[in-house]
Amino acid sequence: MKEILAIIRMDMINQTKEALLTRGISGLNCRKVMGRGKKKVNFTVVDNKVSPKVVEAVSEEHRLIPKRMLSVIVNDSDAQMVIDTIIKVNKKGNPGDGKIFVLPVEEVIRVSTGERGGAAV
Amino acid sequence: MKEILAIIRMDMINQTKEALLTRGISGLNCRKVMGRGKKKVNFTVVDNKVSPKVVEAVSEEHRLIPKRMLSVIVNDSDAQMVIDTIIKVNKKGNPGDGKIFVLPVEEVIRVSTGERGGAAV
Amino acid sequence: MKEILAIIRMDMINQTKEALLTRGISGLNCRKVMGRGKKKVNFTVVDNKVSPKVVEAVSEEHRLIPKRMLSVIVNDSDAQMVIDTIIKVNKKGNPGDGKIFVLPVEEVIRVSTGERGGAAV
Repeated sequence: MKEILAIIRMDMINQTKEALLTRGISGLNCRKVMGRGKKKVNFTVVDNKVSPKVVEAVSEEHRLIPKRMLSVIVNDSDAQMVIDTIIKVNKKGNPGDGKIFVLPVEEVIRVSTGERGGAAV
Repeated sequence: MKEILAIIRMDMINQTKEALLTRGISGLNCRKVMGRGKKKVNFTVVDNKVSPKVVEAVSEEHRLIPKRMLSVIVNDSDAQMVIDTIIKVNKKGNPGDGKIFVLPVEEVIRVSTGERGGAAV
Repeated sequence: MKEILAIIRMDMINQTKEALLTRGISGLNCRKVMGRGKKKVNFTVVDNKVSPKVVEAVSEEHRLIPKRMLSVIVNDSDAQMVIDTIIKVNKKGNPGDGKIFVLPVEEVIRVSTGERGGAAV
């Protein structure tokens, strides 16, 4: 099994999830993160009380940007399809489109039934 | 070492942590995530300003549900015990009870002392 | 590639990021977590509405403490330097200075360009 971690723009989360859903991937979780990519600039932590819109406006030069981190855990055979789907939806050709990380997952267990492995994904 | 990631119901976090503590597992961290499992439905992102109770009420059919993600990093020899403890506390036999993921961890370092590996877990 | 996950004090995040930046590491993300380390005590979940300062004040004995989790994904050759940098900034010799976890990452993809592996880190 693999964990596909995608850091994408906040306003792309719905589209991404719907695209995954139409491909049969319904189990996922997401969370807000503050992040930045490759551009080398000075930055300070964004005050959490500032509205995301203000943050986005001032973050071009020197701040962390609020992003969504989407986590999808899939069987190995579905990993490439999930990656391709996330890229297809999010790729605009601009820095900030996002990044995808693939991490190995050794075991998955569904709590309600005790099922393990592929059956629990 | 392993990272045991458990996505459980928000109101089960205290019981789960206390159960782990009585078994000698005290190092952990948790965070709020929005997630969904296997049921295939349409959904849109939940407005963060909506109270969790409202979200839970409307989320049966088509929304992401706020969950807690618990992360416990343990030596290999403790992994199964931690998994069993989390299942014992959280298993009610219903969808939504949660999921547990096991990820490999290559190194753990305690910042205050520089200890590494098993001694730092 | 490796994911370096560091759980550090909330007020150390800016210094840590600036130290990483001066060493050429600019891609990172962070999030708030609630956590605790090795000290074995009774604890209950901290009400999210309580201000962090109040939480910190009462958390010595029996509560989870708000922390920042910093995630940096780097090529294998940079992993030790990132770990050393995080330790150098955060090590005060006190419990609560933080912990660092190293997880294997199998693949990294930059969404905007489709670049993979080392070029995408």
